[in-house]
Amino acid sequence: MPDFFQLEHTDGRARAGVLRTDHGEAQTPVFMAVGTQGTVKGCTPDQLKDAGVTVVLGNTYHLMLRPGDETVAGLGGLHGMARWEGPMLTDSGGYQVFSLSDTNKVTEEGCAFKNHLDGREELLTPERSMSIQHNLGADIVMQLDDVPELPTTPEREADTMRRSVRWLDRCVDALPECSAQGKRQRLFGIVQGGVTPALREESARELVKRDLPGYAIGGLSVGETKRQMEEILGLVTPLLPESRPRYLMGVGYPEDMINALGLGVDMFDCVLPTRSARHSQVFTGRGRLRMRNSVHAKSTLPIDPECGCYTCTNFTRGYLRHLMMAGEMLGMTLLSIHNLSFYTALMRRAREAILADSFEDFAKEWLPRVSGAAE
Amino acid sequence: MPDFFQLEHTDGRARAGVLRTDHGEAQTPVFMAVGTQGTVKGCTPDQLKDAGVTVVLGNTYHLMLRPGDETVAGLGGLHGMARWEGPMLTDSGGYQVFSLSDTNKVTEEGCAFKNHLDGREELLTPERSMSIQHNLGADIVMQLDDVPELPTTPEREADTMRRSVRWLDRCVDALPECSAQGKRQRLFGIVQGGVTPALREESARELVKRDLPGYAIGGLSVGETKRQMEEILGLVTPLLPESRPRYLMGVGYPEDMINALGLGVDMFDCVLPTRSARHSQVFTGRGRLRMRNSVHAKSTLPIDPECGCYTCTNFTRGYLRHLMMAGEMLGMTLLSIHNLSFYTALMRRAREAILADSFEDFAKEWLPRVSGAAE
Repeated sequence: MPDFFQLEHTDGRARAGVLRTDHGEAQTPVFMAVGTQGTVKGCTPDQLKDAGVTVVLGNTYHLMLRPGDETVAGLGGLHGMARWEGPMLTDSGGYQVFSLSDTNKVTEEGCAFKNHLDGREELLTPERSMSIQHNLGADIVMQLDDVPELPTTPEREADTMRRSVRWLDRCVDALPECSAQGKRQRLFGIVQGGVTPALREESARELVKRDLPGYAIGGLSVGETKRQMEEILGLVTPLLPESRPRYLMGVGYPEDMINALGLGVDMFDCVLPTRSARHSQVFTGRGRLRMRNSVHAKSTLPIDPECGCYTCTNFTRGYLRHLMMAGEMLGMTLLSIHNLSFYTALMRRAREAILADSFEDFAKEWLPRVSGAAE
Repeated sequence: MPDFFQLEHTDGRARAGVLRTDHGEAQTPVFMAVGTQGTVKGCTPDQLKDAGVTVVLGNTYHLMLRPGDETVAGLGGLHGMARWEGPMLTDSGGYQVFSLSDTNKVTEEGCAFKNHLDGREELLTPERSMSIQHNLGADIVMQLDDVPELPTTPEREADTMRRSVRWLDRCVDALPECSAQGKRQRLFGIVQGGVTPALREESARELVKRDLPGYAIGGLSVGETKRQMEEILGLVTPLLPESRPRYLMGVGYPEDMINALGLGVDMFDCVLPTRSARHSQVFTGRGRLRMRNSVHAKSTLPIDPECGCYTCTNFTRGYLRHLMMAGEMLGMTLLSIHNLSFYTALMRRAREAILADSFEDFAKEWLPRVSGAAE
């Protein structure tokens, strides 16, 4: 059986590789599209594929509540239900318990919370997270971790990081090898420790001892400075084994991704391209545009003349602005397709640069191009 | 140059034919998808084509206000802007002036109204309707007609019908032969007269004198009984020339369309398949389903096992219910694709039956199948 992850080439610390799952391969670096409730908002699976999306992420918290993970399993798992044939990843549910549920209380046992749909009392334990993710059936599943409320203290940061390591061991013990659909599932641990270098280091070393299929870096892009993010990444990635993929959770902006690539990250996810699209913001090779801006009203240009996506091949800025002004769903769909295409194309360009040993040139060219507004 | 409309076959009063426009052909009978604001809500042009849609309708009232007909012309006309390559039809704007604008006052000159977006005073005359539709550039354009407020009186019905004939003559005089994009535009007159047979007859005879490319039947499906609708259709269609298409405006339910086909109608439009989809109602060969109903929660069936559309080929009722319960756009898109596919397939089945001289059997089989709820 081939390895789950194969590192193909490095250029400085930047890496090109491939993820191999029971639902096919994905080249890295990869941006994963967020499909919170079993759908990347507004896009069919065919449209995602056309946009170059190779990996879709589902949110355990949302899906455990609605339609329920057992219902998802009965409908063919997340892959079968949503007709996504490529690799998928599910998070643990922990993050949304903190950000969305009404009240929550964390003990060594797990996170108690009232769900945001009907107020029912729930308990999310490492074992329950694994059981739910087993039913959802993603190729990559995430450990449940304990997330300190922000702002936090170094003591609280240390406590939650160490509890996260204990929960990781419970996740390893609880996860069956295969999903309810009979496909291999790989568990990623999550390096925590906030912006405290010693804690990050301790976390990374503990996780690596467990020899996991992959490692995520959590707790970044939550208000720290860009310099802090880069310091932590610069510290953590060298502690992780070369042979395993590294996933920077919840990041992000194109410029943050390019910087993280240079520090050895392989995988990203973020709601930004799809959420921004629904709020009329698009990404281009000349910065961001607000499509509701009246300057676009009569424009016959595509969003990005360099982009080959369905939206840019077919539709003018003038039409897209009209759709957004009129509140038409199609506008959100077309802007989402473009933004996802832009993100996946950026990852492909980065990969080509890494394979050609020209990542530094790529970063020098693209960092200024993707930063800030075009207008 | 081939005729705009060619009647291919009749079976009793039911007709099969073909519309030939500068944007391609459409076989009749045809159901036209409503694309009010320059988009059939939630669907890309590719999805419409896949759903069997051949003709798309645009609403003059909405488009004149936003983005404005001159803007549409500058973006390539309605076809170029929305990337719809097949035939299109635009209405006159009159109906929405009455149903959507804040206040309106009709004189011989036209309809004065305050637009519903910014309250600006506007005047829609036959000449302005033609000028706007010239800019929009649809293959079929509709005359401006005077629509009596309901409930009405026979006197008011007669006055508005006769004014509509006078306005038709102003439309004929005002319409350039070609759109702003250089494509032929065909003007349809609208038979009015409410449920008063003598008025309908007078209206039809006056219109036919003008030898128009096609004739619409307006003012039905506005509260009259089904028997009244059939009486009026039964009276009007024999007064119209065989060689011209007949378009029953705003109809409708599958059962109403089947009955109208038997009375010699060729063209239909209605918001029902798309609006119902957005409200979770779907049409099937065993009646209508409400997709939010909890009976579908765990169902692995497609909406309609006999349907070959993208939605029915790929997705379960359980998933579609989940999407609608979660308020996901994709659900509305997928249900719209199904409903449009069901409507276009019904028209194709009717056409095949007419060509095979078995329309009566078709109607006998399908009328009970499409009427009412499946649950």
